[in-house]
Amino acid sequence: MVVGIIGATGYTGVELIRLLLGHPAITGFSLASASHEGSSIEQVYPHLLGLIAAPLKKAEEVIAESALVFAALPTGVGEEYARLCFESGIPYIDLSADFRFGSDEQTYEAWYGMRYRYPNLHSAAVYGLPELNRKHIRHAKIIGNPGCYPTGATLGIMPALAQGMAHDAPLIIDAASGVTGSGRELSASSHYPQAADSLAPYKVGVHRHIPEISRIAAVCAGRAAPVIFTPHLAPLNRGILSTIYIPLAKNWQSLSSDTAFRFPPGPLIAEKLGAIKKQYEDFYRHEPFIRVLPDGLAAATNRVRASNFCDISLHLDSAGSTLIVVSAIDNMVKGACGQAIQNMNIIFGLDEKTGLGAVPSSF
Amino acid sequence: MVVGIIGATGYTGVELIRLLLGHPAITGFSLASASHEGSSIEQVYPHLLGLIAAPLKKAEEVIAESALVFAALPTGVGEEYARLCFESGIPYIDLSADFRFGSDEQTYEAWYGMRYRYPNLHSAAVYGLPELNRKHIRHAKIIGNPGCYPTGATLGIMPALAQGMAHDAPLIIDAASGVTGSGRELSASSHYPQAADSLAPYKVGVHRHIPEISRIAAVCAGRAAPVIFTPHLAPLNRGILSTIYIPLAKNWQSLSSDTAFRFPPGPLIAEKLGAIKKQYEDFYRHEPFIRVLPDGLAAATNRVRASNFCDISLHLDSAGSTLIVVSAIDNMVKGACGQAIQNMNIIFGLDEKTGLGAVPSSF
Amino acid sequence: MVVGIIGATGYTGVELIRLLLGHPAITGFSLASASHEGSSIEQVYPHLLGLIAAPLKKAEEVIAESALVFAALPTGVGEEYARLCFESGIPYIDLSADFRFGSDEQTYEAWYGMRYRYPNLHSAAVYGLPELNRKHIRHAKIIGNPGCYPTGATLGIMPALAQGMAHDAPLIIDAASGVTGSGRELSASSHYPQAADSLAPYKVGVHRHIPEISRIAAVCAGRAAPVIFTPHLAPLNRGILSTIYIPLAKNWQSLSSDTAFRFPPGPLIAEKLGAIKKQYEDFYRHEPFIRVLPDGLAAATNRVRASNFCDISLHLDSAGSTLIVVSAIDNMVKGACGQAIQNMNIIFGLDEKTGLGAVPSSF
Amino acid sequence: MVVGIIGATGYTGVELIRLLLGHPAITGFSLASASHEGSSIEQVYPHLLGLIAAPLKKAEEVIAESALVFAALPTGVGEEYARLCFESGIPYIDLSADFRFGSDEQTYEAWYGMRYRYPNLHSAAVYGLPELNRKHIRHAKIIGNPGCYPTGATLGIMPALAQGMAHDAPLIIDAASGVTGSGRELSASSHYPQAADSLAPYKVGVHRHIPEISRIAAVCAGRAAPVIFTPHLAPLNRGILSTIYIPLAKNWQSLSSDTAFRFPPGPLIAEKLGAIKKQYEDFYRHEPFIRVLPDGLAAATNRVRASNFCDISLHLDSAGSTLIVVSAIDNMVKGACGQAIQNMNIIFGLDEKTGLGAVPSSF
Repeated sequence: MVVGIIGATGYTGVELIRLLLGHPAITGFSLASASHEGSSIEQVYPHLLGLIAAPLKKAEEVIAESALVFAALPTGVGEEYARLCFESGIPYIDLSADFRFGSDEQTYEAWYGMRYRYPNLHSAAVYGLPELNRKHIRHAKIIGNPGCYPTGATLGIMPALAQGMAHDAPLIIDAASGVTGSGRELSASSHYPQAADSLAPYKVGVHRHIPEISRIAAVCAGRAAPVIFTPHLAPLNRGILSTIYIPLAKNWQSLSSDTAFRFPPGPLIAEKLGAIKKQYEDFYRHEPFIRVLPDGLAAATNRVRASNFCDISLHLDSAGSTLIVVSAIDNMVKGACGQAIQNMNIIFGLDEKTGLGAVPSSF
Repeated sequence: MVVGIIGATGYTGVELIRLLLGHPAITGFSLASASHEGSSIEQVYPHLLGLIAAPLKKAEEVIAESALVFAALPTGVGEEYARLCFESGIPYIDLSADFRFGSDEQTYEAWYGMRYRYPNLHSAAVYGLPELNRKHIRHAKIIGNPGCYPTGATLGIMPALAQGMAHDAPLIIDAASGVTGSGRELSASSHYPQAADSLAPYKVGVHRHIPEISRIAAVCAGRAAPVIFTPHLAPLNRGILSTIYIPLAKNWQSLSSDTAFRFPPGPLIAEKLGAIKKQYEDFYRHEPFIRVLPDGLAAATNRVRASNFCDISLHLDSAGSTLIVVSAIDNMVKGACGQAIQNMNIIFGLDEKTGLGAVPSSF
Repeated sequence: MVVGIIGATGYTGVELIRLLLGHPAITGFSLASASHEGSSIEQVYPHLLGLIAAPLKKAEEVIAESALVFAALPTGVGEEYARLCFESGIPYIDLSADFRFGSDEQTYEAWYGMRYRYPNLHSAAVYGLPELNRKHIRHAKIIGNPGCYPTGATLGIMPALAQGMAHDAPLIIDAASGVTGSGRELSASSHYPQAADSLAPYKVGVHRHIPEISRIAAVCAGRAAPVIFTPHLAPLNRGILSTIYIPLAKNWQSLSSDTAFRFPPGPLIAEKLGAIKKQYEDFYRHEPFIRVLPDGLAAATNRVRASNFCDISLHLDSAGSTLIVVSAIDNMVKGACGQAIQNMNIIFGLDEKTGLGAVPSSF
Repeated sequence: MVVGIIGATGYTGVELIRLLLGHPAITGFSLASASHEGSSIEQVYPHLLGLIAAPLKKAEEVIAESALVFAALPTGVGEEYARLCFESGIPYIDLSADFRFGSDEQTYEAWYGMRYRYPNLHSAAVYGLPELNRKHIRHAKIIGNPGCYPTGATLGIMPALAQGMAHDAPLIIDAASGVTGSGRELSASSHYPQAADSLAPYKVGVHRHIPEISRIAAVCAGRAAPVIFTPHLAPLNRGILSTIYIPLAKNWQSLSSDTAFRFPPGPLIAEKLGAIKKQYEDFYRHEPFIRVLPDGLAAATNRVRASNFCDISLHLDSAGSTLIVVSAIDNMVKGACGQAIQNMNIIFGLDEKTGLGAVPSSF
């Protein structure tokens, strides 16, 4: 099976290649790159020397010869390729934000400043989070592959919202990403002397993943579920850690009267946490890539590095009012390309884990 | 003026030396180290070669020959030295947690597992946060120098609490520290292959800085002010970034009805934020080390690196319900040794900035 | 096929597991750990949760149930296990230095301070560098898996020595390793605040890899070939970069009379370099893991990260007297565990690349 | 005294400001920036907020109001400013390569591709390495401040060459620099995901510091002294480590007949090294910024970080033929701005250490 990648020379393009080279069902690649057309992928990325030798073509050629197309493009430029694929019946997995908002063009336009060209494609598109939408993905022609932050956030909050654990105060998602998250394009914030040995938030209150997370949270909760989301840039190559604060509904709280913290949290906290954890374990029991961590372990980005896992650890604040969920993913894998391949596997009826068995390189 | 440092070979000890070598009022050092007694500081830390040649003595000798003593010891071992200084009228600045709880022995015992030996010393001790307690520090004989996380957190929330901006829901302090925060002692979490290129929380809900932050927050607010505090370990040498979520009291909110985030935040948000920022600027107008950042800038650890500054940036969440304060400090300077020297300057009637003029090395 | 790993909880043990979990011929693991016997590997390394659940046993049990045994032990403790395997006809691949010196007990004793217990095992042992010893490895019962630095160094110098390019002045190998090279054991030099953002040499002139490199260089050259080897510790997790200076024999030089460097090197240099490069390419033409890089590229550790590749780039100094070879490997893969698996593949008659197809994660 | 900085918004410009803000003789700044003229330095670099508020002017204005001018410009653009200063009698310290080649226009042109516009200025210029040229610097009108690599290399080899320790084979300088070395300009090699966790050489055999090092080596040796210089990029913010191989003249060798390294180096090596070390100590006895390290310590970049020190450690290879000198500097301080200020101090007759007393921040 030949797969196509449009936008093959961006970071998500080259990560797709890295992962797909180990996928047993893929027999060949057809690659497009607007910026390097005419060159060859292993010339642009010499770490691929000896592993692949593939010319960089026009997107139209790629579509013509592929059984499935991944679009690893900036937001706003792929709609035409989606249409070509859609009309030819070729599954199209879009890693940009273009197809994440379904028929809600209003929100897409307000946050991204562009309108839909082919609204019908968006109505047909499925939000490609397998843990939420597996059965729709199976028959999808167009997948809006989730954003990296929304993946980590949603996987952390989904069971709590689905089980009614959260009361209606805002969920707070405090997250940090490695620098590959901003891709191959040079920028002051990705300049090594600025990014190394530093930590800072960015786009507080205005990041475009806010409406995406909010939409999915509402689906999970079955009601409006306001979120506060603060992204940070951390001196990592890969990884997103999301520390999520979920104010608990009354019956899930374990309220202490000691709001001055005269004492460390006691055994009642641990007991309540156990009940919550059981819900998370049950919710994700059959998920191949979600690991609800055992007691005493906190999710860490290095334990999922270069893998498709999402690790989740559960904690209660000292006073028992708020569930603290920590989720860790590799932003390039479960946060982008691994998830896209998981979606491809579902579409093709393969075992979801096919080609995604990489063991995290914890050091 | 000769100053003494007990525990001179720990990271806070050697950072005190680094800073004090540039202090114009200090003419000499008297150093104690239990682990390296008989050796000399520049043998233990050869980056000090040519700058200082000081034998490592017993603590009692140091106390006998110093005009002021810094105790850079683990929590629980310095009380006897405090007594010696107290009885001799020598100011004693303790960088451990021992003197941060005043006469509240109950909380100290519950979280640290130890009791006070000399309760009278604790009644006399002053919590050494100049921005809060300057006038008491001036006459203090014993200073409990604040913890690193509590410094960053408190400076971020103090104006909001003092001005009644916060309603009574818990304040959430999501913070990350560089690895020097855990000091010189070897540990698995500080082992380079574990700490590099990774991000993870630790001690969620049970960290000992929770009661310290809570106590001070209550002082600032004039009422109980429950806090949720989550520390993370980040791959930095230095720096603490605190991202603080303060649910706003009604009159400070700028509530949007668009809880589904169909639109990015509008101009009303910016207007409300301006009013809040003005309060912060007024509150800190005369503080030499607090910088409330201009609009559009977010606090970052690299802009305060190796300096005594605390940078604060102010943001509103997209829906206008929650103030997001970001504070950045160098955990070894404003979070420990710089603040201790600031306290020393106050005690000695010096300009607070004396010896603390280092420009941040932003790269 | 069940393989055994003795010393499974050290860094090389756990890296063997990471790689072997993707090896199609391996059906099971039998693991031994002296330090964690009775526990289970995924408890000690929770990044393995969901991938393997294997109890940690005694070494003798492991030997009894394995088709091949990897010993990932400190130098000096594995000889007894080697004997057990040898007598049972089970191939034994030793990742320590114990079996790298063959019957030259004198050198081993002088540098490692220990004597051989079973000299016959050492006479039977083969130095496991496939590019040098493939045909002997095929029938070996005991493999002395090469050291990390010796692998990078030897692969860089082998063609030059074999083709008589070097004159008899010392070869200079200036190399730097990531911190995983010193393993899981805590040490001051691996403490994050010491290792991060710093670069320094260590054990200059006395590192134990000097005799190992020298022995193999002599084999390659067919004469004594003195080497100068300087290791450095670099703030990387993984990777060894070796910059190797080979003084060229007369007929390979391209001597410029401009020893004051009044002019940049001219086209004669490039021409000579082309001839040298052709030799390297021919020498390694059939090697699956050696990549002689195209003109204009210098070897870099990130292009081989997490893979079994050794990248080699060739350069001439400005005056044309000295060949500068740069080799890059992942110290944990080609420098240790990947090479051990390559040896296993050879012993079992498998394609050498089996299980070693990982694409470098260049970011 | 008001000093001027032309090119104030580049990394060397802003590092000059950082250091000069602590210089007691400097009463004011006059700053020029072509790229940010009309703005103010603390707007471009907000870590300077509260420390300086200085408009960015035209270079000509700066020259008109300064007692001394630092030019922190790219190579090739400062000659006109040098002329203006020279004609007005204002000392001009140039941090680019423009004035490092004196009247040797031929070499400058061959390596930099430009010709001199005012040859007389170059004849008047002094190469600003205080340890070599202190007495000429005192009366200089134009200083060519040394390159970062040449500083570390020259300080490492100067005593050996001056004392005739080296025989006439090429000196090999294997050096690595932190990423600030390539300045503020964005580039693929400074992009965090490329630079982090990687190590690689660049411009092997063709780096422009080759002729600069060679020129100074010849001055030190009193004869042609060919050098081989290989720069590497290391994942550090700051620091240059140079590992230098000096083939020893006969009478300085301690030749072992054990070229197969059957034994570790013995006491004769240590004895010979002691004699060499004594020469280095004597040579640098009165130098305020050179530290010849005690036995057993190797130079490391973190021990000189943010300081003007150059640390030097001395080693012999195992066979006693080659002196291995390791020098460590902070590329932004002793490798650029600290050295420029040291030159300013000499010109103004100040103590050389004035304003340069910063203690290295070893962590």
